[in-house]
Amino acid sequence: MKKELIKIGICGYGNLGRGVELNIAQNPDMELAAVFTRRKPPGALKIQSDVPVVHVDDAADWRDKIDVMILCGGSAQDLPQQGPAFAKMFNTVDSFDTHAKIPDYLSAMDAAAKAGSHASVVSVGWDPGLFSLMRLFFGSVLPNGKTYSFWGEGVSQGHSDAIRKVNGVADAIQYTVPKAGALERIRKCTDPNSTPLELIPPNFTAREMHSRHCWVATKDGADEAQIERDIKQMADYFADYDTTVNFISQEKLREFHSKLYHGGKVIRVGKTKEMSDEVNRHALVFSLKLDSNPEFTSSVLLAYVRAVYRLAGRGEYGAKTVFDIPPVLLFPTGAEDAVKKLL
Amino acid sequence: MKKELIKIGICGYGNLGRGVELNIAQNPDMELAAVFTRRKPPGALKIQSDVPVVHVDDAADWRDKIDVMILCGGSAQDLPQQGPAFAKMFNTVDSFDTHAKIPDYLSAMDAAAKAGSHASVVSVGWDPGLFSLMRLFFGSVLPNGKTYSFWGEGVSQGHSDAIRKVNGVADAIQYTVPKAGALERIRKCTDPNSTPLELIPPNFTAREMHSRHCWVATKDGADEAQIERDIKQMADYFADYDTTVNFISQEKLREFHSKLYHGGKVIRVGKTKEMSDEVNRHALVFSLKLDSNPEFTSSVLLAYVRAVYRLAGRGEYGAKTVFDIPPVLLFPTGAEDAVKKLL
Repeated sequence: MKKELIKIGICGYGNLGRGVELNIAQNPDMELAAVFTRRKPPGALKIQSDVPVVHVDDAADWRDKIDVMILCGGSAQDLPQQGPAFAKMFNTVDSFDTHAKIPDYLSAMDAAAKAGSHASVVSVGWDPGLFSLMRLFFGSVLPNGKTYSFWGEGVSQGHSDAIRKVNGVADAIQYTVPKAGALERIRKCTDPNSTPLELIPPNFTAREMHSRHCWVATKDGADEAQIERDIKQMADYFADYDTTVNFISQEKLREFHSKLYHGGKVIRVGKTKEMSDEVNRHALVFSLKLDSNPEFTSSVLLAYVRAVYRLAGRGEYGAKTVFDIPPVLLFPTGAEDAVKKLL
Repeated sequence: MKKELIKIGICGYGNLGRGVELNIAQNPDMELAAVFTRRKPPGALKIQSDVPVVHVDDAADWRDKIDVMILCGGSAQDLPQQGPAFAKMFNTVDSFDTHAKIPDYLSAMDAAAKAGSHASVVSVGWDPGLFSLMRLFFGSVLPNGKTYSFWGEGVSQGHSDAIRKVNGVADAIQYTVPKAGALERIRKCTDPNSTPLELIPPNFTAREMHSRHCWVATKDGADEAQIERDIKQMADYFADYDTTVNFISQEKLREFHSKLYHGGKVIRVGKTKEMSDEVNRHALVFSLKLDSNPEFTSSVLLAYVRAVYRLAGRGEYGAKTVFDIPPVLLFPTGAEDAVKKLL
């Protein structure tokens, strides 16, 4: 008897969609069924796999042929509309990452998924995603302490996109770099030899935690000084950070700045109540080092495909976050095997 | 209206039980109701809190006055019998840590908890516990790779106890130390500058990953050479490791080797399928540095008390592991708040 595979649809074929397509092969319980695109005609989109490329408007025809649809569109333009529309038709996984808008998006997805008797998990990836889980675990098991999230060194696609919209910019990339001083100050708080002994590190400002480094290729005749000012003054993205702007040719940008590597750390430092008169401090650290952000993110999405598929199979409809998902649902071979091999 | 607090019972008042007692104060939604002991009369046990000390044989009288019982007894002698007996009467959390026997213990606890309409979570702490969770998350989100668990530098209470049973030993402590060579070889696998490029590190032997360092106080007239041989040849505990044995007076042992600090790392190194012809590697690392192992472990147990209390409130009876628990159940202020603050 052939094992039943989880049939996956990919909606949106950018870096993330391509990463999902490739990494399905790493999961022997999954297979790709179709890729969905807004391109007209859809056949103009060349993909790597031998599956149909379908126009998004025809997605409804695939309701019975897709177990889980992975929404690989952008959080700003695509997902707010596309997410709920697809959650009515399919079980879904997405990487919606506009932090401030997650509660509204979650609630729209929950209503749509319940209306369609489907399961969805939103905001999957590494942040939001694995980093969020670590913040929750760390804060819950060590309530008296502080949690710090550091991103980088690595390429922020959101910040790179923001620079590309500046007048006169042809292309750009932005590296986020954690500040060594903040990391060192946190490290010292768990080093019994440091003096003076600081038990819990301070609250850092945005500027104290990260710096931002931009590599920009300009359009012909652009005003570099103006571009630099426009970038450095951009609210939310750059104004609160030490930002450097470097100009470079389009060719050099492609040659030396094309890798979408990333990484980061979640750190919690805290205290427990002491049995003796000693002060007992604890540090929990989760760190990631990724050669390719979209490839790793797609690999995380696929683990949550398995969870959504299992939730839908049990009739647990509605939209959830990584916080709601019992970890064992991510594990390919079930609870008993997980206990035996990993507990 | 006064908020309903989770009423906790502590069964067993060793290091772990004392840690739980102290750390309840870090969790404003919990209160201690009673401590249970095998001591006769129970009043001979002096505790820090102003709550009753009750003999374990009278525990049944407390069924309606305890929401969650934390079983702080040992895995070898206490929990195999005490666990199921208590799971029939109470919701329970324990730190059962005899890895090979967890499946049988889980199944006995599940039957008892279901018979008594209670919820239990077994094998909570940092390993088994947080480390197990990391092994499961890491392996699920990066299926093509290898996971390594390192313990230390720190005090292994199990190994210290094993030495104390050797003929002629009065007291002892054992430090587990990860081998720098293994850690460095793993690190190099994600360093693009290392040559030759090794993509995934090898499987290490036990000896290649950790060394063991023993500090031993002997009884009068003991044969030190024999003690050293007995320790180094002990199967499972020392025979497969590079072990050093140092002899020291009981006074010096107490003075310089009384801190129960510990720590460790879970590391996964793996690859995703590449979009380009580059090899893309990723490293996920979780590390812990603990000034006091029993205080931190007790703090983890308390987070899972909250989860068990909530599961019981929903009527989800039976025994679970950390793999089964939706992470949000650990978080004091609920799912909506977690999404807003941590996702």
